[in-house]
Amino acid sequence: MKLAFLGAFAVSSLAVGIAASQSAGSATPPENASPIYGVTIPEGYRDWRFIAPAQEAPPLDELRAVLGNDIAVDAYKKGTLPFPDGSILVKLAYKRKQSTEFAPATVPGAPTTVQVMVKDSKKYPDSHGWGFGRFVDGKPVDVAQHETCLSCHVGNVRDHDYVFTRYAP
Amino acid sequence: MKLAFLGAFAVSSLAVGIAASQSAGSATPPENASPIYGVTIPEGYRDWRFIAPAQEAPPLDELRAVLGNDIAVDAYKKGTLPFPDGSILVKLAYKRKQSTEFAPATVPGAPTTVQVMVKDSKKYPDSHGWGFGRFVDGKPVDVAQHETCLSCHVGNVRDHDYVFTRYAP
Repeated sequence: MKLAFLGAFAVSSLAVGIAASQSAGSATPPENASPIYGVTIPEGYRDWRFIAPAQEAPPLDELRAVLGNDIAVDAYKKGTLPFPDGSILVKLAYKRKQSTEFAPATVPGAPTTVQVMVKDSKKYPDSHGWGFGRFVDGKPVDVAQHETCLSCHVGNVRDHDYVFTRYAP
Repeated sequence: MKLAFLGAFAVSSLAVGIAASQSAGSATPPENASPIYGVTIPEGYRDWRFIAPAQEAPPLDELRAVLGNDIAVDAYKKGTLPFPDGSILVKLAYKRKQSTEFAPATVPGAPTTVQVMVKDSKKYPDSHGWGFGRFVDGKPVDVAQHETCLSCHVGNVRDHDYVFTRYAP
């Protein structure tokens, strides 16, 4: 009995060890993590606070909104740059659709992508501290698409800690 | 001394009485309340949860986002109609501006209006339970503009408890 109990404890500890290793970004990324970065869709993000809306011209033709966790929103409000480790931004995107109820308005149609930026300067030293994830129907898109994230952010918004979105008042 | 103390207490009670009367919607509306409805910009609304984005075509040419308090957001998530008393929706509107950093994107420019809907079926029996407020630079716009709220909502979204915005997934 004593041996059996110890055995169960050892297995349990092993399982905990694996989970911790995955979340720290080991070679075995968690399920549905983005290639290259191992970023996942953060739980509860839809209830996070609102940072700003945007529109993307055709052919994508999307309405978008960026939400942030408390660390990110607090950094925006205080004007803290670079964003502190732990900041997470989530961009929601929808096809832009003509409202059937009000002629001048376009409104969200089908969701297209969810895009995530995670600041962790230890985990992502080669991408200025940012990890990227782009998801369609909850699944990460391929390596080729993720290879485009960094160069576009570095090329265009280096002076804003590689983040496009500004806080809308 | 005893009389003086009682006098101060009486004045203090009177002040509390006036404040309570104003917040309950007496003939003396609070400062910066909308005409007709007496709606004010709710404190802390900018940290409320996000419901949906929208775009308004020219000539307004705006990007918009609707936020809601917990009662409103919970009603949206559960599909509760009509919205329960205490629901508050706030629409933020901004001039749509070309991004200087990413050609396909338009982003929020100057804020234009903040528009508020408050559900209180006892206070607003003549407008299907809704009170409306439209604000520019924190000040309510005039009576004529507020007279247009109800007819447009009644004419177009009667089947959705007079609310245009749907919850974006």
